[in-house]
Amino acid sequence: MAEQERKQGKDIVLTGDRPSGRLHIGHYAGSIANRVRMQDLYDESYIMIADIQALTDHMHDSHKVSESVMELAIDYLACGLSPDKNTIFIQSLIPALPELTILYMNFVTLSRVQRNPTVKNEMQQKGFGSSIPMGFINYPISQAADITAFKANLVPVGDDQLPMIEQTNEIVRSVNRTCNKDILRECEAVLSTVTRLPGTDGGAKMSKSLGNCIYLSDDEETIKQKVMSMFTDPDHLRVEDPGKVEGNTVFDYLTAFDPDKSALEEMKAHYARGGLGDVKVKRHLNDVMQDFLAPIRARRKELEQDRGAIMDMLKENSLKAAEIAENTLEELKTALGLKY
Amino acid sequence: MAEQERKQGKDIVLTGDRPSGRLHIGHYAGSIANRVRMQDLYDESYIMIADIQALTDHMHDSHKVSESVMELAIDYLACGLSPDKNTIFIQSLIPALPELTILYMNFVTLSRVQRNPTVKNEMQQKGFGSSIPMGFINYPISQAADITAFKANLVPVGDDQLPMIEQTNEIVRSVNRTCNKDILRECEAVLSTVTRLPGTDGGAKMSKSLGNCIYLSDDEETIKQKVMSMFTDPDHLRVEDPGKVEGNTVFDYLTAFDPDKSALEEMKAHYARGGLGDVKVKRHLNDVMQDFLAPIRARRKELEQDRGAIMDMLKENSLKAAEIAENTLEELKTALGLKY
Repeated sequence: MAEQERKQGKDIVLTGDRPSGRLHIGHYAGSIANRVRMQDLYDESYIMIADIQALTDHMHDSHKVSESVMELAIDYLACGLSPDKNTIFIQSLIPALPELTILYMNFVTLSRVQRNPTVKNEMQQKGFGSSIPMGFINYPISQAADITAFKANLVPVGDDQLPMIEQTNEIVRSVNRTCNKDILRECEAVLSTVTRLPGTDGGAKMSKSLGNCIYLSDDEETIKQKVMSMFTDPDHLRVEDPGKVEGNTVFDYLTAFDPDKSALEEMKAHYARGGLGDVKVKRHLNDVMQDFLAPIRARRKELEQDRGAIMDMLKENSLKAAEIAENTLEELKTALGLKY
Repeated sequence: MAEQERKQGKDIVLTGDRPSGRLHIGHYAGSIANRVRMQDLYDESYIMIADIQALTDHMHDSHKVSESVMELAIDYLACGLSPDKNTIFIQSLIPALPELTILYMNFVTLSRVQRNPTVKNEMQQKGFGSSIPMGFINYPISQAADITAFKANLVPVGDDQLPMIEQTNEIVRSVNRTCNKDILRECEAVLSTVTRLPGTDGGAKMSKSLGNCIYLSDDEETIKQKVMSMFTDPDHLRVEDPGKVEGNTVFDYLTAFDPDKSALEEMKAHYARGGLGDVKVKRHLNDVMQDFLAPIRARRKELEQDRGAIMDMLKENSLKAAEIAENTLEELKTALGLKY
């Protein structure tokens, strides 16, 4: 109870990622950068490495998932997410999460999860059709367990994830109504100005399977190659021609990563009126990306020597997170009378 | 591994009930009697008090579920199920079960559980329509977790439950194929000659809500009242008329509980040819039921004084069961690479 009251007043953030490979700069621009900025702003922050959630569409690839856990942790630390400011933990080490999920499943109808727009979209993207696994269709409920277990009230997400927050709050209200007590805490989305980076081929999204990503761990030569072969304005054939900045991947990347915003504005204007060649812009982007990625790569290298210590940190944090989630579960079980 | 091999050779039985009120003689005839007979036959036996499963259709009545746990345990012991021969445990005290369930959910499609005839029937019976809770539709997967966690190979069920066994074995095969190793054990139904007792009103089934049950805990006078007002042959108006034995509830009960089978056959013949009145047959049934229920009721009375010790037994057994289920979960996680 005292714990409960204490938590209610705190700003608690939960974020996380499915471990399914190395992070690329799209992940960085889309969410990690934001988390690095946020890590000093709130009382508590939990970052979940969602291995169990990753299994919902990688069950036959489970070893890949578990191997990616360490890569993801190294990426986090290399980007500057501090284990002192964030409880970075592994989902499968928190037994209270599946227990909460199973209880919450009694509060949500099948037709309700089927109507969830995020689930609908992802079902389409993954081509599941009618053979959607139960684990996949259930993941909004599983996410509600993740958020509520830690009494998180702030969940940084893109606007495509808003239906997940809504589903979580519906569960919170149903559970609290049934318990006649505010056991669970409602949460709200923290909508950041999410930067969605296109792939190096100009495709809408960076995706491992499309081979259009720049990874945080890419070496100097690989980055250069990827930048120099990047999609630009296909109609910008001669240097003296006016070029399009809008929809030009090279400028999208510069907007996200070039620290000198005013010089960038001049460059965009120059490109638009003609007289600035793609190769020159790409060379500049290469400089910007090398400057940005070199220190991350260097920290990655150091961290890779420290896998043992990183795993110890993850396990220790997971124990701490497990205890907090267990407390929430116990509160709920007590309210439901499930204490023996 | 050694544990695994040891288990593979053993006959392990799993049974259980949802705690949703006191047991009636329909439960006894339908399954408890069979378990009492079986408890000396196999190497290991687990009896699960399925409180989490009971919540799938009693979520708003959770206190009733948890209160029924003790009543069910008392009924078990009063009927002669021995805690020395059976590990009697409470489902919600086994954290590995929801963990296994969540993993198994990735191996089963939504359309597969929707096709499960047992789920379909129960959905219809409970009038869920399209607002079926996820917890309810998921319960075949949850049952697969219950069975496989203990490496049970023998599951005593009625033939209406055969689709559940089939679903479990499908999961077992999928999981083992993915793990490239026989982690889980297939099971088979033990189809006993299940005696389905009609309600005292002649309705197809005893059901609390219909008020047509005789409870194991009913007192002498209540039993007598229920027996004397029981449904018989509605066309058997005068003593001298021939009566129908088939579909006559009084004779159904006698068939299940009268220990003197040859005398019963004579009585049936007498009733059929005429000259035997309903009141006389009912008085005989009352004697039979009183003889059968008196010792159970007496043991119930004694056991009710011992609730503390019974709860200690349940908790101790649940700890033991939790460890066994945890071993199975650890084997599976190891095979999937989910060990950190």
